[in-house]
Amino acid sequence: MTHTTDATTTDHAARSAALDAADPLARFRDAFVASDEVTAYLDGNSLGRPTRASAERLARFATDVWGARLIRGWDEEWYELPLTLGDRIGAVTLGAAAGQTFVGDSTTVILYKLVRAALSAPQVAGRDEIVLDAGNFPTDRYVLEGVAREHGATLRWITPDHDGGVTPEQVAEVLSDRTALVLLSHVAYRSGYVSDAAAITTLAHDAGALVLWDLCHSAGAVPVELDAWGVDLAAGCTYKYLNGGPGAPAFGYVRADLQGALTQPIQGWMGSAAPFEMGPAYAPHDGVRRFLSGTPAIVGMLAMQDMLDLVDAAGMAAVRAKSVALTEHATALVDDLVLPLGARYASPRDPERRGSHVTVDHDAFEATLPLLWERGVIPDFRRPNGLRLGLSPLSTSFDEVRVGVEAVRDALAEVLDRTTAPGAAESA
Amino acid sequence: MTHTTDATTTDHAARSAALDAADPLARFRDAFVASDEVTAYLDGNSLGRPTRASAERLARFATDVWGARLIRGWDEEWYELPLTLGDRIGAVTLGAAAGQTFVGDSTTVILYKLVRAALSAPQVAGRDEIVLDAGNFPTDRYVLEGVAREHGATLRWITPDHDGGVTPEQVAEVLSDRTALVLLSHVAYRSGYVSDAAAITTLAHDAGALVLWDLCHSAGAVPVELDAWGVDLAAGCTYKYLNGGPGAPAFGYVRADLQGALTQPIQGWMGSAAPFEMGPAYAPHDGVRRFLSGTPAIVGMLAMQDMLDLVDAAGMAAVRAKSVALTEHATALVDDLVLPLGARYASPRDPERRGSHVTVDHDAFEATLPLLWERGVIPDFRRPNGLRLGLSPLSTSFDEVRVGVEAVRDALAEVLDRTTAPGAAESA
Repeated sequence: MTHTTDATTTDHAARSAALDAADPLARFRDAFVASDEVTAYLDGNSLGRPTRASAERLARFATDVWGARLIRGWDEEWYELPLTLGDRIGAVTLGAAAGQTFVGDSTTVILYKLVRAALSAPQVAGRDEIVLDAGNFPTDRYVLEGVAREHGATLRWITPDHDGGVTPEQVAEVLSDRTALVLLSHVAYRSGYVSDAAAITTLAHDAGALVLWDLCHSAGAVPVELDAWGVDLAAGCTYKYLNGGPGAPAFGYVRADLQGALTQPIQGWMGSAAPFEMGPAYAPHDGVRRFLSGTPAIVGMLAMQDMLDLVDAAGMAAVRAKSVALTEHATALVDDLVLPLGARYASPRDPERRGSHVTVDHDAFEATLPLLWERGVIPDFRRPNGLRLGLSPLSTSFDEVRVGVEAVRDALAEVLDRTTAPGAAESA
Repeated sequence: MTHTTDATTTDHAARSAALDAADPLARFRDAFVASDEVTAYLDGNSLGRPTRASAERLARFATDVWGARLIRGWDEEWYELPLTLGDRIGAVTLGAAAGQTFVGDSTTVILYKLVRAALSAPQVAGRDEIVLDAGNFPTDRYVLEGVAREHGATLRWITPDHDGGVTPEQVAEVLSDRTALVLLSHVAYRSGYVSDAAAITTLAHDAGALVLWDLCHSAGAVPVELDAWGVDLAAGCTYKYLNGGPGAPAFGYVRADLQGALTQPIQGWMGSAAPFEMGPAYAPHDGVRRFLSGTPAIVGMLAMQDMLDLVDAAGMAAVRAKSVALTEHATALVDDLVLPLGARYASPRDPERRGSHVTVDHDAFEATLPLLWERGVIPDFRRPNGLRLGLSPLSTSFDEVRVGVEAVRDALAEVLDRTTAPGAAESA
């Protein structure tokens, strides 16, 4: 089965071109490194593209900064970078005033530190339950399993809808005076569902619990207002919509008035009150620095700085508007082209409740990946059957989405033809 | 007081030139990024210089790798990089067979994970003491303080000599059937003392304890034979003598036969048996991967690869021979030029027991730093009074050491003149 240009394809192309022509953020696309052989990159929710400015920054770093300033770089910039960069992430993407956000370890390690800090907080002394959901990203669940076992805490599981996510009603059902902590993702990694973080935070606080939001799929794509929502703790990723590069260090947030009461277990020199005094005993720093542990990963903190400049220039409201337009466009294309082949839409239909990716399920999707990659079309895939179309607002065009979804349609049709064609069983 | 060319200076210059002329590793110096305004970089023990190859690798990374391969980079290389790079570090610098070394978090976080893993090992069940020393780097002591408090363990402190380090005799005195773990630095961060790791490991094993070696000041400068010494656990730094760049991720080592019995507390997706299955419950990977937690810091793992190639090409025996020659040269210069001004040599005189740096104490050294930096001479300094001359074997010339020590002599003399000159008290 081959799909050549027909009336529908022409309509989709025209519609995509019109959306691109009207896109107020279209000019930002030139800010990213181009890749000729990739015709549709729909995986910005997993690894954002590099900006051109970051390519230049990395190219200059070894010669002009590391190699030229050498150890002096620590005094001049790097020692404070986990906090100055944290403040910048907070201001541009999290609605967080200065002094509450830090850049440090991997998301997993920061989650561990913040969960441990929360469970030892005097505010929740005597409470022994942690609320989480079965749809959360594995590392969140794994961290909580481990900490709960150590602390003799009980995990209270919420089971969200496959196509949805955790609702305030579901949280209300499991909260009690035993709840110490609620850990949820603001945007569900699979469905893209946007939880009502403000409402859930209020519910948790009313029950006397602390809340930790995982913002991995939010930061830089979906507006977040940590201070306004009264959030206690948050952590998130910088290599998705903040384009920090593979494995760039994550950020953490601890609300200012909580910092003095919370301590984290990985006591390292960079979180101490006076790192260069080489003192005999650990005393945590007064401020958010206490949540740091080891020497900060400076090289990994370079690229995200340029993306933050772009997001700041565009503004989170405009970024969100384009994100919604992109996922609406992807949804319409999927409805027209992919669902007729037996696939199932697995994200919220309501754009208000949808983050910056759209997931479609089909058992044959795994077999389409080699075909798609070969053709320069790169979606995301989550086993066993979820194809995620991750649409990074500043680097993705509407026509790129069309090219990608059409390629998904073609590849899926080919795989299905192959498996249902006469003799397919013998040749498989 | 001004120091102009005199007979001694001429002798030192001639001696340095002769050593450089006879240096079999001299050609490696061209492999590093030059910095015109830095005439003597004597801080390779804190932050190694970038190699030229790393500068090129970083310059290409965003455009040719991250930007071109995009998410496919994870399948093609990055997912395994923490282990393949770990194997390479193990083979080139640690005397460690494959499958035991990983690159992961900061040194602090890896120390935390390995200490926790050790304390929960069945081998040391019921034991409640940890042996450490007051001269160890703060982060090592801070991590142990925190873990000991959590576990109700007792810290058994060794107090090493100021100019020396921990000896087998000192360890033997504190070992008992209560000892669960011994954590020491192979090379002392201040004095540069090289502990007898083989003998101490054997002593600890004879007492039924596990041993964790901090190799921060060893890896890439002082030969290490983890497998031959029978070491249980190790961790170390990659931004010093492995030139990984500021904050490059650290490595950890867990002896193969121990891995199955040890688990670490930060349960993340990258350490699980099947990270991409998104399974419901955490099961640790069978192998050394179980000591990973979050998404690996790929950008931070780039530069060290080039330095490993250089160390491999030179060979650790030749690297060590040059390191000894450099510290002997520095010692002779310090004896001639700096000790006469009232400074005190604070490293082992025996080159067998000395790592790749030499420390000199003087209360006026802190005041010399601005003068030295201004003159392009960059030693290391540890409060309150220790000037460390860190001599990275492949990037440091003998004449660079001479230039540096002469500058230290001049700056110290100026500071002392200033403070002892008539009227100094009034103008200070």
